[in-house]
Amino acid sequence: MTDLSAPPVGQPAAGSPFIATKIAESVYARDSTLTGLDEFHRWFGDVARRSPCEVRPIPLDDLVGWHSDPVTGDLVHDSGRFFRVEGLDVHIPDHPVPRWNQPIINQSEIGILGILVKEFDGVLHCLMQAKVEPGNVNGFQLSPTVQATRSNYTRVHRGRAVPYLEYFLGQGRGRLITDVRQSEQGSWFYRKRNRNMVVWVEEDVELLDGFRWLTLGQVHQLLGEDDLVNMDARTVLSCLPFSGAAPLTPLAAGDEGFHPALARSCGGAGGSRHTVDDILRWITEVRSRSEVTTARLPLNRLDRWHRTEYAVTHETGRFFDLVAVDVLAGGREVKHWSQPMIKPCDTGVVAFLVKRIDGVLHALVHALVEPGYLDVAELSPTVQCTPVNFDHLPAEARPMFLDEVLNAPPERIRYDVVLSEEGGRFFHARNRYMIVEAEQETEPGHPDFRWMTVHQLVELLRHSHYVNIQARSLVACLHSLSGQPSAA
Amino acid sequence: MTDLSAPPVGQPAAGSPFIATKIAESVYARDSTLTGLDEFHRWFGDVARRSPCEVRPIPLDDLVGWHSDPVTGDLVHDSGRFFRVEGLDVHIPDHPVPRWNQPIINQSEIGILGILVKEFDGVLHCLMQAKVEPGNVNGFQLSPTVQATRSNYTRVHRGRAVPYLEYFLGQGRGRLITDVRQSEQGSWFYRKRNRNMVVWVEEDVELLDGFRWLTLGQVHQLLGEDDLVNMDARTVLSCLPFSGAAPLTPLAAGDEGFHPALARSCGGAGGSRHTVDDILRWITEVRSRSEVTTARLPLNRLDRWHRTEYAVTHETGRFFDLVAVDVLAGGREVKHWSQPMIKPCDTGVVAFLVKRIDGVLHALVHALVEPGYLDVAELSPTVQCTPVNFDHLPAEARPMFLDEVLNAPPERIRYDVVLSEEGGRFFHARNRYMIVEAEQETEPGHPDFRWMTVHQLVELLRHSHYVNIQARSLVACLHSLSGQPSAA
Repeated sequence: MTDLSAPPVGQPAAGSPFIATKIAESVYARDSTLTGLDEFHRWFGDVARRSPCEVRPIPLDDLVGWHSDPVTGDLVHDSGRFFRVEGLDVHIPDHPVPRWNQPIINQSEIGILGILVKEFDGVLHCLMQAKVEPGNVNGFQLSPTVQATRSNYTRVHRGRAVPYLEYFLGQGRGRLITDVRQSEQGSWFYRKRNRNMVVWVEEDVELLDGFRWLTLGQVHQLLGEDDLVNMDARTVLSCLPFSGAAPLTPLAAGDEGFHPALARSCGGAGGSRHTVDDILRWITEVRSRSEVTTARLPLNRLDRWHRTEYAVTHETGRFFDLVAVDVLAGGREVKHWSQPMIKPCDTGVVAFLVKRIDGVLHALVHALVEPGYLDVAELSPTVQCTPVNFDHLPAEARPMFLDEVLNAPPERIRYDVVLSEEGGRFFHARNRYMIVEAEQETEPGHPDFRWMTVHQLVELLRHSHYVNIQARSLVACLHSLSGQPSAA
Repeated sequence: MTDLSAPPVGQPAAGSPFIATKIAESVYARDSTLTGLDEFHRWFGDVARRSPCEVRPIPLDDLVGWHSDPVTGDLVHDSGRFFRVEGLDVHIPDHPVPRWNQPIINQSEIGILGILVKEFDGVLHCLMQAKVEPGNVNGFQLSPTVQATRSNYTRVHRGRAVPYLEYFLGQGRGRLITDVRQSEQGSWFYRKRNRNMVVWVEEDVELLDGFRWLTLGQVHQLLGEDDLVNMDARTVLSCLPFSGAAPLTPLAAGDEGFHPALARSCGGAGGSRHTVDDILRWITEVRSRSEVTTARLPLNRLDRWHRTEYAVTHETGRFFDLVAVDVLAGGREVKHWSQPMIKPCDTGVVAFLVKRIDGVLHALVHALVEPGYLDVAELSPTVQCTPVNFDHLPAEARPMFLDEVLNAPPERIRYDVVLSEEGGRFFHARNRYMIVEAEQETEPGHPDFRWMTVHQLVELLRHSHYVNIQARSLVACLHSLSGQPSAA
């Protein structure tokens, strides 16, 4: 029994070199003695086949267990728990669109996203789950050990207990490696946060159906496949106390390839364009300069949004629809429910431009204002948008750096995978996640952008309110490249 | 002309050892070649005499430029700017008082609290201001160079420009040493933040009437006097990138006195009971465990609060009154205005219990939930309360550690000075600030308390949302002791 909050003296503290080394070794473990990747894929396909999930759109009025508030039109669960969909009036005077209305999900409960890790044959493994969500294009995706709202785990839904939850509650049964509250989509959620947790256990853990132990190196390879590693897994992975999967052998002087530059960027030995203190002052400046005013509005009183039988939609058809789905999940235990979801109008682009500066890879970070953030702006990818929303606008309204990303020649594209956003709230919400080497002369050119190393992003990930969910996914993707067999 | 956000390569960056050394040297400069402390006192008394300030209570309905909203009763400035006083419904299920109503100040504008620093004869000096505020018991107190709300400096009040403000706006004329947004009183303000800034200039600066350059060592001595250094000055001082005013000579081994232990605590060479990562995970745990729900209420619909001619008061007379004052400030230019203020019912106690742990001084920090915080809880002093509010309650409701602080023998009291809270919003709001050596066997004994070093508090002060305004004052007081001639 280890006290989560005060590890016994003499044991390695979280964030210690010991744990960073264990993480690095797991990153370099491209295979496992427990489950090889071929076997993983057979198992994963088998779980999905045994548990079909049927999802169909239904009229908003046919939601069961949910109702529209008679006065506001807000969509509310009959228990008053889970989440509600309401309206938001947004006012940002110096924004290209200074004022707009939109539906937004208000989920004030803090949920838990947790990964259990344990050594097997001296290598750290993560306990990952094959989990179905109604919004996933492909049903099942690879998820953290635990993914639970407070309503889930206090059993408002009267379902089964959440497996392995006991490791993440109270005085747990392992050592807490990561525990930090992070925001989620600032344009779809109003001030939502989840607790990102990693717990290291030493005791034996029963392996339940639907779970597998995988090394970080294996999870990183799976991050190279479309729509496989889910958003919740990605955000927890990004919050691991990497001091970087630095190569285990020293870098040769003058070795200026992409992979050595990435290793230096993750390793944090210096060479960053700005200090972290400079970055913190820059964030203060952006947050102080941007005046954001939001006010909740009744869902039935949003300007330019209209409710039809099946959806609440913007009059242009752009942005997203609020829809309702009926879900029938098969398998050992049949579950049947319905719920509202946000359905974006098209696939988005989420990209970091990266550049080697004095042999250290830097990502071009955007301090982005979104209405759902608790503190005005968070560090975001270079590009984060749904391009189709800009098709009707003049060229000068086009998101900065979008064309440099989309027009990059193949040899400068280091990562290009379509990944899904949270399938429990978003219906078929997919983004093309990219890591693209910038042209050498690319510079921020705008006061809301800065070059940062991966290590600096990881340092800020120890805190809330700094790195947004899309950037956290890309941090996980960058780490996934760091363990690849080196090829300059 | 130095770019605030990107100091030129080759110049020492903020947070660098160079700046930490300059700060330490200024702490040890107990006197200055510019203005000695005797001369300072003559000057300060003279400014106060030349500019009398007359403040008298008036009926709430006699406020000029302010009105009560006809529907809600909220007190609102006619311009819609500055601040408003409204009601708050607070719900904290696991709090000793799980639900209450109260008036609260809503001031969403981010103001600037800024100190200009400059070297004279190789020693850093701070440009401090003798500033009158209507809520001060003694009229004038020593304030930062600049203390301005956005409405002030965009001149909603149609007054004179704020002197020296240009150094703190946009691409300024100095190097930015500190720039971080910090919260203010979480029980009187709803989510208020101010920007705490320190700018280092090299150019000549005109010394205006009402301002003096003082070393940190001089300001620290003035912190030993009742009601002299104001709250805004204290919070900015606490955010300076001290790496501690470590003594300029190395500590002898086995030197276990209070001052060496304080120097080690400020210096950050290690020896802390918990790592910063442990502290961060503990804060996550407290914030996740505490469910706080707040909702704005009309000021005229607060349960147990009543409006009389001169005040909005709690039916017991406890906590605070909302009052109105008429202000006539004399001097070269006469100003006359009226405004609402919060007037606490009695003097409070704000104290750190401190203890030497393996030769390093630790302060007992309380992760305190207050309704006005943006993120649930902030690190607070061991004791922060108004004792008279607890007189009617049973012994078990008495704040933890209050009696240990109040009953400490004189030789364990290291600091004991009455300091004022912000005199622009609070009327005669005073607290007895204390630093008291705990009995050696004192331990947290409660999951919301932890021992931390001064250096750890300063490290967290680089970020928003961590250290509350009262604890920041005590950090400034602890630093003020660090420069004292050593006496174990």
